[in-house]
Amino acid sequence: MTRFFATPEEMQPDFLVLTGENAQHAKVLRLKAGEEVLICDGEGRECLCAVSDVSDGQISLVVKKRQESQTEAAVRVSVYMAFPKSDKLEHVIQKATELGAYEIVAFPSSRCVSRPDEKSLKKKLERWQKIAASASEQSGRGRVPEVLVLPSYKAALDRAAKADKALLFYENEQSTTLRMVLQSGAYQTVSLLTGPEGGLEPAEVSQAEAAGLQVCTLGKRILRCETAPLCALSAVMYDSGEF
Amino acid sequence: MTRFFATPEEMQPDFLVLTGENAQHAKVLRLKAGEEVLICDGEGRECLCAVSDVSDGQISLVVKKRQESQTEAAVRVSVYMAFPKSDKLEHVIQKATELGAYEIVAFPSSRCVSRPDEKSLKKKLERWQKIAASASEQSGRGRVPEVLVLPSYKAALDRAAKADKALLFYENEQSTTLRMVLQSGAYQTVSLLTGPEGGLEPAEVSQAEAAGLQVCTLGKRILRCETAPLCALSAVMYDSGEF
Repeated sequence: MTRFFATPEEMQPDFLVLTGENAQHAKVLRLKAGEEVLICDGEGRECLCAVSDVSDGQISLVVKKRQESQTEAAVRVSVYMAFPKSDKLEHVIQKATELGAYEIVAFPSSRCVSRPDEKSLKKKLERWQKIAASASEQSGRGRVPEVLVLPSYKAALDRAAKADKALLFYENEQSTTLRMVLQSGAYQTVSLLTGPEGGLEPAEVSQAEAAGLQVCTLGKRILRCETAPLCALSAVMYDSGEF
Repeated sequence: MTRFFATPEEMQPDFLVLTGENAQHAKVLRLKAGEEVLICDGEGRECLCAVSDVSDGQISLVVKKRQESQTEAAVRVSVYMAFPKSDKLEHVIQKATELGAYEIVAFPSSRCVSRPDEKSLKKKLERWQKIAASASEQSGRGRVPEVLVLPSYKAALDRAAKADKALLFYENEQSTTLRMVLQSGAYQTVSLLTGPEGGLEPAEVSQAEAAGLQVCTLGKRILRCETAPLCALSAVMYDSGEF
């Protein structure tokens, strides 16, 4: 079934009117009166609607049923990633969204080569949020994960530590595995924190432990900075019973 | 410790002499007599060596200890991927290598848009094998996964079906999960088969079942063709106790 993302204001109780890109899209798809579509508010709620009218720049819909989104993961996984170089963050935002991440949080760490300045940040955040929205639509999600930027490593640790399972992946950790941490008790929220290209500094790893994160390994092979969060996210989704 | 990949012929019992790129690399690293390095044959065996001499275009080594590679996964996972468009296969080869895949097998299916012709295939395979070699080196693997191309979908099914767990991921499958299949019995070899951008055709899915593959889901979200194999591979590595 065709899915559209609407703004919260467009989500009216009985009748919906969509304009702009949605209306254009409806025209391209040649939607006809009577057809059913799914309208998502991007925050996990959706309604099944019947098309009542398609005209230039506007599509009118009658609400048939409201429901919680059926495609969101039960577990809320936050992906914390130290700013990587170039387009790697965009890659992670797209893939983590497909894989069901609840949010993606970028932050600076000592060895980050790339750090967007204050000026360019607003534009970049808009772009990143668009990538998340487009990946949500393509993967059939009912919620668009938020992309956040935190000002410091400490801010990232303090926020990440609040999850039921707060993990930091470190290539020099050899004994504690992701499995040990996940299977030590039930969880509904998970933070997965990974470093930039050059890795985290030993002092940063200690700081994370002090902040309450558990340091663990993702196995014997060294994963690139853009591979590690997606590998960990896939494993958490598997462990939590998503597939 | 610095690692080099040597050819099987270079792997002599007591003394090794490396030339070409390895010798250049040793020069760049300014290796000195007495330093220890790890020489891998790319097939899972390695030896710990002491540098005895570095000269122009040649590095001589004394073997101190031979061992099986310590970084290979215990489980042998073969990633079967229907030819995707453009550089997606290269992306999957790089990432699957990092994640520990045993081999990557590409094959045609009905909805494949891109299929390399006989003429360009040899060159492409060389390029793909180089990507696997470089990702092996970067991730610290002792074995370079082989990249194979099979001539038909049927050939892929017949080969994939020989694994202890042979799985095909299909977006319309809703009940059988990867977990159910993996946890139904011990395994040492796994085949993970995924479709191209447009997915597999229902008839192809039935054909796979008839060939002995189990059809299962990767969850409620639609994954892109380059995301699905890496998600499944991460989950298998997690399930088999790699991290």
